[in-house]
This record gives sequence, C-alpha cells and structure tokens, in this order.
Amino acid sequence: MKFTLAAIITLFSLFSYQQSYAQHQERMIRIAKIEVHPQYLEEYKSFLTEEIKASLTKEPGVLTLYAMHEKDEPYKISILEVYANTTAYETHIKTPHFLKYKTGTLKMIKSLELLDMSPIVFEDKSKFQNKTN
Amino acid sequence: MKFTLAAIITLFSLFSYQQSYAQHQERMIRIAKIEVHPQYLEEYKSFLTEEIKASLTKEPGVLTLYAMHEKDEPYKISILEVYANTTAYETHIKTPHFLKYKTGTLKMIKSLELLDMSPIVFEDKSKFQNKTN
Repeated sequence: MKFTLAAIITLFSLFSYQQSYAQHQERMIRIAKIEVHPQYLEEYKSFLTEEIKASLTKEPGVLTLYAMHEKDEPYKISILEVYANTTAYETHIKTPHFLKYKTGTLKMIKSLELLDMSPIVFEDKSKFQNKTN
Repeated sequence: MKFTLAAIITLFSLFSYQQSYAQHQERMIRIAKIEVHPQYLEEYKSFLTEEIKASLTKEPGVLTLYAMHEKDEPYKISILEVYANTTAYETHIKTPHFLKYKTGTLKMIKSLELLDMSPIVFEDKSKFQNKTN
C-alpha cells in the first residue's frame, strides 16, 4: 500500500514537472491593443519603431513583433508579439530598449489591452511550401 | 495659359495613376476577428485549418495566415492575414478551398469583424538579423 502511494506520488510529480516544463518551453503569443492620444501619435511610433528594431536585432528569444494600425483610425494600434517562451519574454521586459520605450511612452497611451493567445494554425508559409516537395 | 492647364492636368493624372498603382501593389494586411458558437468550435477549427493549409500551399499571393484564439475564451478567434496585394486577395476568395470554408462555416459564426490594417513596423526577424552582419 505504501509502495503504491509512493509510486502514484512519484508519477504525479513527474507529470506535473513535464507539464510545467512544456508550458515553460512553448511559444508565447500575444496581441497588444494600444490606443494612443492622437497628439502623440508620431512620437509614439518613433519610440515603438526603435524598440522593435532593437528587440529583433539583439534578442534571440523575441521571434516576431508586427506593429500595425487600423487603416481608418491610425491611433488604434495592434502589435502581434511572439516570444520563444516565457523566459524570453521576462528577459525582454528588463532590457534597456524596452524600458526606454515603456517609460518614454507612458503619457502617450490612452488605453492598453494585452490578450494572451493560443495558436490554431500559426506557421510560416515556408513550412507548407516544403510539404509539397 | 492653355498649355499650363494641360501640363497640370497631365501631371495630376500621372500622380493619380502612380498612387493607385502603388496602392494596388502594396501588401494587404487584415485582422479578422471571429466569434464562433461554442458548440461548433472543434468543427470550425477543422474547417479553418484545412483552408489555411490549402491557401498557403497553393496560393503564392497568400503570404501569412496566423490563426489563434484567446487563451481564456477559445471561441474568440483572430486571424492575421497578409496578401501580396489586393489582386492576390481577390483571387483567394474565389478559390474552391476558400469557398468550401466560407459556406461550410456560415452557421458556426456568431460574429465577424474585418479590420484593415496598415504596417508601422512589420518585418520578419531575419531582416533585422542580416542588418547586424
């Protein structure tokens, strides 16, 4: 009886570890929805552009940062963010270029919504083109 | 006077043509926001997955289709769509695989919002990594 209990506990621990490891390792996908005070729009875009270029150049774990605005309402901005894993994200938000953006744009932001996303189909075109070979 | 007017009209026409050509040629970026009736969620995802794989494999002008759902509300789906230009998009919506998806999922869709987007910074990581070489 004691042996069975020990075995169950061990199996459960292993399973939990594996789960948390898998979660830790998986890509982190997020959509940031930002509304900017119109009078700061150009200044905000300049901060954002600098931050994105630095992140993609210097951080191996920052995989995608697509920044775009609604065609009809240019101060409504969306950023699709993909990080290699949560560790890469946590590293990212401590970098000097991110902190410069964050503190520098604080007064320009009217609202910010962060949506954590899970992939359904989320692969580059190249993956599907190779399949036809 | 007549000559000046003719010159102005000619220049204006050339400018308009160039503008419309540039618009025609530029990438088309869109976010589709779809809410699915929960009872159809799995069936909807299966239709969507098939449609995306076919589009990326068979259509050179369909550059990106990233489909994802909100982590906390899996029936709230977003698709980031990038087409080479508006012609590629118009071709896309006439393909058999798109029409199969569109007609097959009609009853599953609770709401659909299409947001036309313009890029701020919208480039792949590889572009920035090459810059450091």
